[in-house]
Amino acid sequence: MAMPDKLNLTMLCDFYELTMGNGYFEKGYKDRICYFDVFFRQCPDNGGFAIAAGLEQIIDYIQNLHFTAEDIAYLRGRKLFSEEFLAYLADFRFTGDIWAVPEGTPIFPKEPIITVRAPAIEAQLMETFILLSINHQSLIATKANRVVRAAKGRTVLEFGSRRAQGADAAILGARAAYIGGCNGTACTISDQLFGVYAGGTMAHAWVQMFDTEYEAFKAYCQMYPNNATLLVDTYNTLKSGVPNAIKAFNEVLKPMGITKCGIRLDSGDMAYLSREARKMLDEAGWTECKISVSNSLDEYIIEDLLHQGAQIDMFGVGERLITAKSEPVFGGVYKLTAVEDKDGAILPKIKISENTGKITNPHYKKLYRFFGNHTGKAIADYLCVYDETVDDSKDLEIFDPDATWKTKTVYDFTAKELQVPIFKNGELVYQCPDIDEIRNYCLEQVDKLWDEVKRFDNPHTYYVDLSQKLWDIKFNLLKQKSGK
Amino acid sequence: MAMPDKLNLTMLCDFYELTMGNGYFEKGYKDRICYFDVFFRQCPDNGGFAIAAGLEQIIDYIQNLHFTAEDIAYLRGRKLFSEEFLAYLADFRFTGDIWAVPEGTPIFPKEPIITVRAPAIEAQLMETFILLSINHQSLIATKANRVVRAAKGRTVLEFGSRRAQGADAAILGARAAYIGGCNGTACTISDQLFGVYAGGTMAHAWVQMFDTEYEAFKAYCQMYPNNATLLVDTYNTLKSGVPNAIKAFNEVLKPMGITKCGIRLDSGDMAYLSREARKMLDEAGWTECKISVSNSLDEYIIEDLLHQGAQIDMFGVGERLITAKSEPVFGGVYKLTAVEDKDGAILPKIKISENTGKITNPHYKKLYRFFGNHTGKAIADYLCVYDETVDDSKDLEIFDPDATWKTKTVYDFTAKELQVPIFKNGELVYQCPDIDEIRNYCLEQVDKLWDEVKRFDNPHTYYVDLSQKLWDIKFNLLKQKSGK
Repeated sequence: MAMPDKLNLTMLCDFYELTMGNGYFEKGYKDRICYFDVFFRQCPDNGGFAIAAGLEQIIDYIQNLHFTAEDIAYLRGRKLFSEEFLAYLADFRFTGDIWAVPEGTPIFPKEPIITVRAPAIEAQLMETFILLSINHQSLIATKANRVVRAAKGRTVLEFGSRRAQGADAAILGARAAYIGGCNGTACTISDQLFGVYAGGTMAHAWVQMFDTEYEAFKAYCQMYPNNATLLVDTYNTLKSGVPNAIKAFNEVLKPMGITKCGIRLDSGDMAYLSREARKMLDEAGWTECKISVSNSLDEYIIEDLLHQGAQIDMFGVGERLITAKSEPVFGGVYKLTAVEDKDGAILPKIKISENTGKITNPHYKKLYRFFGNHTGKAIADYLCVYDETVDDSKDLEIFDPDATWKTKTVYDFTAKELQVPIFKNGELVYQCPDIDEIRNYCLEQVDKLWDEVKRFDNPHTYYVDLSQKLWDIKFNLLKQKSGK
Repeated sequence: MAMPDKLNLTMLCDFYELTMGNGYFEKGYKDRICYFDVFFRQCPDNGGFAIAAGLEQIIDYIQNLHFTAEDIAYLRGRKLFSEEFLAYLADFRFTGDIWAVPEGTPIFPKEPIITVRAPAIEAQLMETFILLSINHQSLIATKANRVVRAAKGRTVLEFGSRRAQGADAAILGARAAYIGGCNGTACTISDQLFGVYAGGTMAHAWVQMFDTEYEAFKAYCQMYPNNATLLVDTYNTLKSGVPNAIKAFNEVLKPMGITKCGIRLDSGDMAYLSREARKMLDEAGWTECKISVSNSLDEYIIEDLLHQGAQIDMFGVGERLITAKSEPVFGGVYKLTAVEDKDGAILPKIKISENTGKITNPHYKKLYRFFGNHTGKAIADYLCVYDETVDDSKDLEIFDPDATWKTKTVYDFTAKELQVPIFKNGELVYQCPDIDEIRNYCLEQVDKLWDEVKRFDNPHTYYVDLSQKLWDIKFNLLKQKSGK
């Protein structure tokens, strides 16, 4: 059902993945097993956490991976690739293993969201699409979760398709926004493809199409008496829009015994207009009429509006959600962490770089989350080497990997591995949950974070610690490679 | 070749376009001819102009518009639409007219980029996709043009696929970046589909795959002696990367008589590192070795780096271009400007709203650009009613529509209509230019703007004026509708 079923995205790769692939092929690294981690370095908007999303589309992409005859012909035309390599690509399919944290999981910087174990060329080729999918959908799910938390239980709908950065950004953005907690979208195809509830009522054009605003409202109430939300700002919200809406409600809905209806404000001062509209509606007896607003909203504006006593039941959030306007990049990266030698021994690898923040956590790893048994809350995440196991029946001393003298003893906790197997030897071994399961899981897991981690400004930095063994391996690689 | 050939995007519409369509159908407005304008209100990044892009994908979309049996079944399941309307949708195709400014044209706020004349339901249904395509690609083309101008003739490549907001954002973003002036992309499929030249060399993983950095570099030079650009920051740029690159060039390229090669810096201080690397390369005799950089670049950082004497030949611009990070929303809107009555008379329509900036320019219009005959430069854009014609053999007094006492006489000029016919009675009457024609046209047209309009900060506001007749119509509608 998802898009990659319909469009083969194998060639959506950075060209260097192909030149490197050709090089690995030629230089005898074709079958060398590599480990790559996907991780990010900083939460968008200086938040305390992010929400993982985009895995389902990666699965679709991988199941569809293949080079067509046209793809091979295009590559041959570039005159860089050997015929042997092109023949290899013609038969290409994914044969490796993938582990990932499920969609909807709260995630933190520097921990592996996805781990790929595969022959070098395969692992390298998937870099762009894996990152693109995780970066896009995690970005939007994270932003949506912020907006939804700001709305404190009020309905939030995603309204941004027209300002999205392309069709996928609209379609999959609506999916990610729903995972992050939105109640629905305006994007019809996202409902059809993913079951993200799509709704909507009228544009200004509807109002302009009729001779008067009142006629437009009346016609709409007649058409959709059970879904009559009227857009009241085409001419003048309080002098014309709201009075005409009340008149139409009285004329059409009242005789039918309908008490549920709505108005939508799309311009002007939302705090003032919503309070005034509420008064007018209540005085006219339309106390169940819901007030929706939609005008360049985000989590900060929603907080401010509610703080000022705005009378709003529903937020339609458009461009600032669908593009994550305040920080439109989720900086996930895909880095080599280990390779296997001919005997299958796993050799850790590190990338150093001048920017300390860009140094990677080497090796094939496990990712645990520790939950306090009494509170149910998440205490810390813990990265260890693949062959280590956390015994949560005993106390465990953990330390800050950037300031190793800062230690903390974790006790009375349950350790949960966060990554689950997705592919094994190229075969899918994971059943994607449906969108409502993902959304519920997300909201449930966000509830397990302390409020201190959830603050919009200056949140508490959640612990993502390394085991002593992993830290030692990293430290030794750093000493050994630095300046080499 | 473009994406919508492969995926039917008819259902990528806001749900309200369908509920309104059903309403127009029921209320007798089905065949009412409407005029809609696409325009934007403000240039991104407070720039002086934008670049139009995204038309070709709109054409593909319109030619593909149709509801499948599954689409109809989904809509029936929503229990909102009449069977007559669903039958109408099953036979739906576009029958109207479309005019647009060609891709690559510099555009200004409040002027119609696209004008749609079609029966109400058709015109309404296309709103989301038309906006999405124009908003996305114009955003990226505009940003790319800024980056390219900052680079002052140096090569600029689009490197952002992995941080793009979905697959389309990567694929069509690379297309738009090329239209705006980039020299190529890292995105392979954009080359294959659109002829946007794709290039690239190596990731850090290549360097890590080998036992030493030197072996990795040597292997790469052997593989691609004519395209050897080596990534030098995996361990330590100046102590390890550049010396190992020089050693590999000496070992592999020198004996082959090759003098052209490259290094890429991906972290650290680009001004300092590029100057030091340049010295080292020159001293070793590799004066033709090009230095590329890629690390969170945009037009401001590029300007700063060049100002500080950075020795850079090529910029790889990633996330800040592909998402237009500094302002990731191009706020194009789609507004009803007129309807035809039963006798074919065109009745202008206006939307007022509380925010003055959201008031529309009514009516079916013509858009002219005036060029000075001596300078070749663009002087002003001019909007008039469809039945007016500018006689550029005579002087013309124009005035600021927001401050009508400010007038200017235009003389010795050529008036050029900017919109061209795209569809006539549902038939495509336009031949899309190829991507290099669009790119050349864009660069040529940007050259016709005065430098004052091209400043990044505080540019001169280009004139977009209304004819007296159009202004009078707007003023009368405002007086008549306001407070109604």
